This record gives sequence, C-alpha cells and structure tokens, in this order.
Amino acid sequence: MIETVSTARSHGGVQGVYTHASKTCQCGMTFAVFTPETNGGGPYPVLWFLSGLTCTHANVMEKGEYRKAASEHGIIIVCPDTSPRGADVHDVPDDWQIGGGAGFYLDATEAPWAPHYAMASYVMRDLPAVIQSEFPADMERQSIFGHSMGGHGALALALKSPDRFKSCSAFAPIVSPTSAEWSRKAFAAYLGGNEAAWRAYDTVALIEDGKRFREFLVDQGSADGFLESGLKPWLLEEACAGAGIPLTLRMQEGYDHSYFFISTFMAEHIAWHAERLKG
Amino acid sequence: MIETVSTARSHGGVQGVYTHASKTCQCGMTFAVFTPETNGGGPYPVLWFLSGLTCTHANVMEKGEYRKAASEHGIIIVCPDTSPRGADVHDVPDDWQIGGGAGFYLDATEAPWAPHYAMASYVMRDLPAVIQSEFPADMERQSIFGHSMGGHGALALALKSPDRFKSCSAFAPIVSPTSAEWSRKAFAAYLGGNEAAWRAYDTVALIEDGKRFREFLVDQGSADGFLESGLKPWLLEEACAGAGIPLTLRMQEGYDHSYFFISTFMAEHIAWHAERLKG
Repeated sequence: MIETVSTARSHGGVQGVYTHASKTCQCGMTFAVFTPETNGGGPYPVLWFLSGLTCTHANVMEKGEYRKAASEHGIIIVCPDTSPRGADVHDVPDDWQIGGGAGFYLDATEAPWAPHYAMASYVMRDLPAVIQSEFPADMERQSIFGHSMGGHGALALALKSPDRFKSCSAFAPIVSPTSAEWSRKAFAAYLGGNEAAWRAYDTVALIEDGKRFREFLVDQGSADGFLESGLKPWLLEEACAGAGIPLTLRMQEGYDHSYFFISTFMAEHIAWHAERLKG
Repeated sequence: MIETVSTARSHGGVQGVYTHASKTCQCGMTFAVFTPETNGGGPYPVLWFLSGLTCTHANVMEKGEYRKAASEHGIIIVCPDTSPRGADVHDVPDDWQIGGGAGFYLDATEAPWAPHYAMASYVMRDLPAVIQSEFPADMERQSIFGHSMGGHGALALALKSPDRFKSCSAFAPIVSPTSAEWSRKAFAAYLGGNEAAWRAYDTVALIEDGKRFREFLVDQGSADGFLESGLKPWLLEEACAGAGIPLTLRMQEGYDHSYFFISTFMAEHIAWHAERLKG
C-alpha cells in the first residue's frame, strides 16, 4: 500500500518518508511520518502537521525540530505534502500561490484543477486510511496543527471535524483566505466565481456560519512580513470572541514567518497537544 | 567588515548569516552565527561547528537543532562553510570529495588549490578575528565540534591548538583521512605526493606524533554507511588508548550518518561543552 523512500533513526524513534498512490488526488503522493518508540510500541496518538505555501513534506521534517518532543510524549507526527504533484497534474510553475505547493487543503471543483487538487479529502480520508493501516497509530486520538496555509488547513479542518481532532493549534495561520490577496486567486481558480462556496474553506467564515471547536492555540510573530497583508490574526480573534471559542493568541515579539520561528515554539505546541491527546 | 545576509529571531536569540571578504581564502566567505540573548548580552563563549563533505554553513543551521541548547546555555555557535567558493576558485563540480564543499580544514600547498583552499588558517585565524570584532564573543572561552569531515577538522585543530579550545567533540568523525579512500584523493591533490606532510591534518597521526588534548567525546551511529570504509572509530580508540587521551566513544545503535543522527545528540554535546566552557 505504501513504498518506503527512506527511514532514519532519530531522537529514539524513526523518521520515515513514504509514497503511495492516492485515489483522492489521482497521483503518487509523498509524506513523512515520525514514529516514536518510547513506550513499548504504541499505538500512539497522531498529530498532523500541515505545511505552508511552497513546502513539501520535507520542510518541517528537516527544520521543524519536532522529533525530540514527539519522542518524549510518544506521539506520531504525520506531515503530508501541500498539493498533488506529477507530470499529469496541472500547475503554474512560475506562481507560488497556486498549483504545486499551494493546494490550500480544499477540494477543487473547477477545471483544470478538479481531477487532482483534492487536499481536503486527501488529509481527511485518504491519508488517514494509510496511517491507520501502516503505522502503530491510535486513530481515536488525533490532533492537528500547521503553519501559514497549513494553519488555515488545520483550523478549517478542525472546525469541520471537531469529533476527529482532540485539539488544534497553528503557527501564523491564514485565517481568512477568502479575503487575503495571496489566496483569493487560488480560491477563484479552484472553486470558481461563486464566493459563497469558498466559505467552506475559510476559518473566519466557518465560525461565522456556525462551526465550533473547543479551543485554539495560535502563535504569531510580530515581525512576520505577511502579518498585515495575508495573516491578520485579529480577524480570528474577533470571530472567536463572537462565537465564544477560547483562543490563546500569542504575539511573539520579533519573530518572522520562517521555520526559525516555528521551531522555537514547536515543543510547546506538541506538549499542549499531548495534554489534550492523553487527557 | 561583514555583510549581513539574513537574521531571524529563533529560540530567544538571533540566527544570522553573514559574508565577508576572506584574506586567507582570497574570496568571499559565508558563515552562520547564532547569538543567544539569555543572560544580558554577553560576552558569550564560542562553540565552533565544522560541517562535513558537501555541506555549506546552512545544513547544520537548518537541520542541526542546536539553537535551543545554545540559548539555554548562553553560547554563540559559529558555523563556517566547508571550502572557499566562487568563480575564481578551482573546483571539480562532479566530484563531491574534492574542491567545493570538501576543504578538509587544511591549507593546500599545491596548484591549482593553494591560492584559495586554506580552511585551516581560515578557521584558526581569519574567521576568529571576524567573530571577535563583530559579535559579543568571549574568545578566551572557545570549544569546537563537527561532523564527519568536520569531525576530522575539530579533532585535528584541537590537537594542534589545545590552548585555544576548552573542549572538543565530534559526530562520526573521519579520524584517519590519510588512510581513508574518500579523503586520500583530496589530500594528494591539496598537499602533494609526500604523505609525511599529510600527517599534520590527520587526527590519528597527530596523536602518534605526540599531539595531545585533554579529552574527546565522540558519537558514532552503528548503521552509518561510512563506518567501515571511511570513519573507523577504532583507529581513534587505539590512538587515544596508546597516548592516554581520555576518549568517550559512544556507538549509537541504529543511527546513520545524517542530520537525523546529529540532531539527536546535539543538545547533549552542547551541554557537555557548556560545562567545560564555564568550568
């Protein structure tokens, strides 16, 4: 069902990279899984990390510094790719905000994107079946987090599946992709001109439309170059306040949008999820 | 004196990348410095990390997971490049064991390498002057460590400068580059056919020739693909035993040669150096 690209022992566990033929995306998909070996073989709770624009599974695997904490807490970390890829998969190679590396964790309905760009279903159904089948995973205990576009994915998917995820956090998430310049183009291409359909993949809109989740933890760097233009965490703050969703929004002084920021707070996020996964 | 390529806040400190015009290497050189800001502004002790074949300053900066420990212990980490680079610098682009990315921390004497390949002097004199001048560094407290070719560099430079370095450790070091296949070619090219001259850059030979250091810590993965062919830590064990140099050689079960291995033991090495830098 899956092919092993590589495995390496790290922080007492195994960091693997795998590929499988994805039915949902209709192409081969690569993903990374860290399996801890700290408490006798599992099954381990599963924490999903969704990455941001331009990333593959590899960025957070190499720069995210998640293995020590995952090993200590006995948690599997799953890092999917951010889009379908391959010779048959439509792309706009010159544009980092649409196509390859920019799946936005939604199911495209429009040509030429619809056949492959189904990252919502991929993360919600296709890849979980693989994880359940191939890894010592306790699928009754799942949580989700992510960065930027992946923070959007984590928040939106948690709001739509509060029963699947015990907890949700994000680093510098895109909380209102339907209003932000860097996502509107992709949303229009993937979902068409009827903006009402976009709301199913927009955290602020989902909350406005009645979706709820038990609480969110968000870290946001104050020196993030995308803060004012694309991220606007105050929109999430307003939406959560209006809906009574507890939000811990931590503005981190001087931090930017990079993995130097993510890695700094990674262990705290994992500890926060671990409490909720095991509580 | 230096130009800042980038800085990012990380783990409470600043991860920077800088360039300077190196007199020793006669070309522009790039290096990374992590400056902690944990105890009021320094001066901080300095821990040098020398990287392995094919690496630049960036590999350990991105994958080494050193910032948390460096921040906690209040230590500056300096990561030099592994060779001179540039349009004027001789290279053999198809061969990863010589030229760019393969400086071997020695001063070449032979054409066409001699004008630029002077990484021993670069790490011992040129770059330290920059660090002293531009960073809040306490140059009276320096230690050194490295990986593979950089482990060779760390061990050999420590043996030749026991007064400069308080401590020295290595991950999977090349302990006998004059006998290992993957280094003999470069040594012959850089230093010429007289193998007696090579001994000044070979850890085992330096010890045989009377150089001493107070102790070494070495981690070596048992699943390292280069263990038998290029690393041979037992040669270091024999040399240290013969010379009465305390060596802690830890065979790490199942670990390979990658940064997944290095990052696992990075915090332990930094804590070990911190004790000796502050003792």
